[in-house]
Amino acid sequence: MAATPYQQLEQEFRRLHAFRGAASLLRWDAAVMMPRGSAAVRGEQLAALDSECHTLLTSPRVSRLIERAQANEAQLEGWQRANLREMRRERDHAIATPIALVTRLARATAVAEVRWLEAKQDTNFALFAPHLEEVVALTRDKAHVLSQALGLAPYDALIDGFSPGFLSVEIDRLFREVSQRLPALIRDVIELQARRPPLPLAGKVSPAKQRSLAVEVMRALGFPFDRGRLDESDHPVTEGVWGDVRVTTRFVPTEPFTGLMGVLHETGQAMYDLGLPEAWRDQPVGRDRGMALEESQSLLLEMIIGRSRPFLRYLRPLLDRHFGAGGPAWEVENLYRTLIHVRRGAIRVDADELTYPVHIMLRHDLERRIFEGTLPVRDLPQAWSDELEGRLGLRPSNDAEGCLQDVHWAIGSFGYFPSYALGGFIAAQFYETLRNDLPSFDEDIAAGRFGALFEWLRQNVHGLGASLSSQELIKSATGKKLSAMPWLRYAEAKYLEAE
Amino acid sequence: MAATPYQQLEQEFRRLHAFRGAASLLRWDAAVMMPRGSAAVRGEQLAALDSECHTLLTSPRVSRLIERAQANEAQLEGWQRANLREMRRERDHAIATPIALVTRLARATAVAEVRWLEAKQDTNFALFAPHLEEVVALTRDKAHVLSQALGLAPYDALIDGFSPGFLSVEIDRLFREVSQRLPALIRDVIELQARRPPLPLAGKVSPAKQRSLAVEVMRALGFPFDRGRLDESDHPVTEGVWGDVRVTTRFVPTEPFTGLMGVLHETGQAMYDLGLPEAWRDQPVGRDRGMALEESQSLLLEMIIGRSRPFLRYLRPLLDRHFGAGGPAWEVENLYRTLIHVRRGAIRVDADELTYPVHIMLRHDLERRIFEGTLPVRDLPQAWSDELEGRLGLRPSNDAEGCLQDVHWAIGSFGYFPSYALGGFIAAQFYETLRNDLPSFDEDIAAGRFGALFEWLRQNVHGLGASLSSQELIKSATGKKLSAMPWLRYAEAKYLEAE
Repeated sequence: MAATPYQQLEQEFRRLHAFRGAASLLRWDAAVMMPRGSAAVRGEQLAALDSECHTLLTSPRVSRLIERAQANEAQLEGWQRANLREMRRERDHAIATPIALVTRLARATAVAEVRWLEAKQDTNFALFAPHLEEVVALTRDKAHVLSQALGLAPYDALIDGFSPGFLSVEIDRLFREVSQRLPALIRDVIELQARRPPLPLAGKVSPAKQRSLAVEVMRALGFPFDRGRLDESDHPVTEGVWGDVRVTTRFVPTEPFTGLMGVLHETGQAMYDLGLPEAWRDQPVGRDRGMALEESQSLLLEMIIGRSRPFLRYLRPLLDRHFGAGGPAWEVENLYRTLIHVRRGAIRVDADELTYPVHIMLRHDLERRIFEGTLPVRDLPQAWSDELEGRLGLRPSNDAEGCLQDVHWAIGSFGYFPSYALGGFIAAQFYETLRNDLPSFDEDIAAGRFGALFEWLRQNVHGLGASLSSQELIKSATGKKLSAMPWLRYAEAKYLEAE
Repeated sequence: MAATPYQQLEQEFRRLHAFRGAASLLRWDAAVMMPRGSAAVRGEQLAALDSECHTLLTSPRVSRLIERAQANEAQLEGWQRANLREMRRERDHAIATPIALVTRLARATAVAEVRWLEAKQDTNFALFAPHLEEVVALTRDKAHVLSQALGLAPYDALIDGFSPGFLSVEIDRLFREVSQRLPALIRDVIELQARRPPLPLAGKVSPAKQRSLAVEVMRALGFPFDRGRLDESDHPVTEGVWGDVRVTTRFVPTEPFTGLMGVLHETGQAMYDLGLPEAWRDQPVGRDRGMALEESQSLLLEMIIGRSRPFLRYLRPLLDRHFGAGGPAWEVENLYRTLIHVRRGAIRVDADELTYPVHIMLRHDLERRIFEGTLPVRDLPQAWSDELEGRLGLRPSNDAEGCLQDVHWAIGSFGYFPSYALGGFIAAQFYETLRNDLPSFDEDIAAGRFGALFEWLRQNVHGLGASLSSQELIKSATGKKLSAMPWLRYAEAKYLEAE
């Protein structure tokens, strides 16, 4: 029997999945193993794979098959219809960014990234500005064509590339909810925490000891080391595909928790990737549901669970065993205060759980103004400093700690930042439901029993792949539309608890 | 200006090179890093990349471009004509093995390899025999179509896939030369060596110490660690492409030289890959000249140089420093006797330099008879044992140590074995010329100066890529057609020296 158009599509997307898996392994190797002098060769290999994926998605054959499969959609099962929808979505994104534009953007961002790094090192925004202008202009072109293909506003079309199904009108609503209460909350928490500052954790812990602790924690979480690895790289990252997921972190001897928190963050994403439905694993419907959902899994594990008293009670004897750490600074209560300490700072990646969304809202606001042309690129440094002062009450000491601190805009990732904050809100909404569904949640965590947690996540999140839209998935898992209120309730309960 | 057909071909083969480089990195990862449970996922990725390469080479577009480029060949430079010839060769090999046949062979060999391993573990040839018969039948089909496309005899067409430019008539001539003198030589050497057996090297050396020695030796040889790595795997292997070459070895605590000899063997191949011409590095003319030439580089370094007194004089102080090894067993003369010890055995991979070609000639003879149908597969065990007894005077104690010891036939690699022996002959012919061209050869090696050696290899072998045929390359490097006489002279001088 000849293969149906839908079956032929599955075959094409199976190839796409294999190429993407290969590319992900090549990126992991570049971050963890690759000799320094091999970057150019690796760049060519990755470009060839990317271009192959683009060619596949934009081929007339695939578009023809999609049309024919849609004409017979009634004969498909439910998950197949969802798969076809995701195939179409990927095709639309690819076809709306013709190879000529992709190539121009790739060239412009490659140069812009180098200039950005120089500008950051020299704290000289003027070096970067013309390149940012070019990237913005090309990104506008891309958003324009994407907008027409997807039937979304241009900026929303960019967001859709990272976190499908989120519109800026909803993001604005969520950010407004948060903005109304967060500034006062931050002020109150800083005041409260100042009354009992944590004791400092002195001394150094070797990376080998930190690694052995991290491996034990990952095993307890259920990370399958026969289908994944933990390694070290300059920046924590998760690569790989279902069946072979690679987590990395960075161990700093003077910061005994930096590496572990990186591991929790990445393991959250890794467990999502490993929990995707096996039967759909090489199809678009078997992919994760985008950046915001991935970030929700990372933040649930790192921020909500990892920085909680039950988790630290579980961790305490492990710290004894792996680090040989003792004394009052290493008691659960002091570790907890250390890990939830709130302070206003200029740098996003150093920010705590409470001030982090402020950094995101600032970027979301500025990138939209740049994108819409109401903020000229040359005025960005001034606008950034003013916004930071207005939102957090401090000014960056220079542009390297201001508008030059993040790489995202240099590489054309406009519309990416909101995902970080959305991830936090989604995580808190899951957490509220989880605590409700699992009455012994805290006791389980304190005993190092993570089975029920991941069982819930597999049933409600991981195992669904991309079969539902982001909003449908959140609704089906929590019974409610996404709101920032669970996050605010969680944040207030955690950070303002009566002592 | 529009790209010429030839320029378009360069672009296509650049993609091919990127895919092959990606596949090689994936194979390295599978051997060194990959979690055990990820093999199926990796298999799919590799199959997708292989199939993409096959599709590219067999596309009507590439064939059309080759025809048009050939029509205007007069306008090309010399190296471009050689490149076009190699493009055509790769196309011919690919097009002669249609995807249906490739797929059937891939399926048959995948099953046969599993059955071979079971049969070897159970020492039960009958388990494997029907699968070997299927692989032989399919390989005959493949050889038949290849034969017509390449204008070679069927078995020669298979050889051409591993070591282009070698015909079985020449291989037979070389093997006859060797066979006339080798049996007597082996007998005399064993008798001579029995008079002064080496002292045993007792004790264990940790893999960490063996590694640090190996790294120092690789550095001395000129291996660039900013464009390559050394890792460990079950079987030594070299993967990667120009610009990023990965060497592996296996360190055995009770065998202090096994790991180092593996490193020398693989570094010989790695230096070839790294010394290929940068300007052609992503084109067919910039590839190595096939298995026999690669093996010649491995054997020159491991067997001829690595197992020589000058090299051991260089190594002696390093052994002190890295292993802390002392006593009479670790003196240069005893190490030399240990490393050139000759004994008759049943296992190819354990064989010494002198008996190794015997194992190869046995396989070459048997595989041709199987392939031509004069030896039925069911009679292979008996024929193997008889041949081994006739050639080396011993019978394997069972089929696991007889005709089941190697994986090659199970995976369809007929025509591969001769390359191993050819590599040894080529290495000896290079060595004879090298000693002539470089009067201070021994002194340089003893002093750890390998610069002149690799400079000669770069000029005469590595830097030529695939621009000459194998025979032309050997002739241009040594002034003579390939012969087994240099190898016999070298072997007699080394193993029968007056004490």
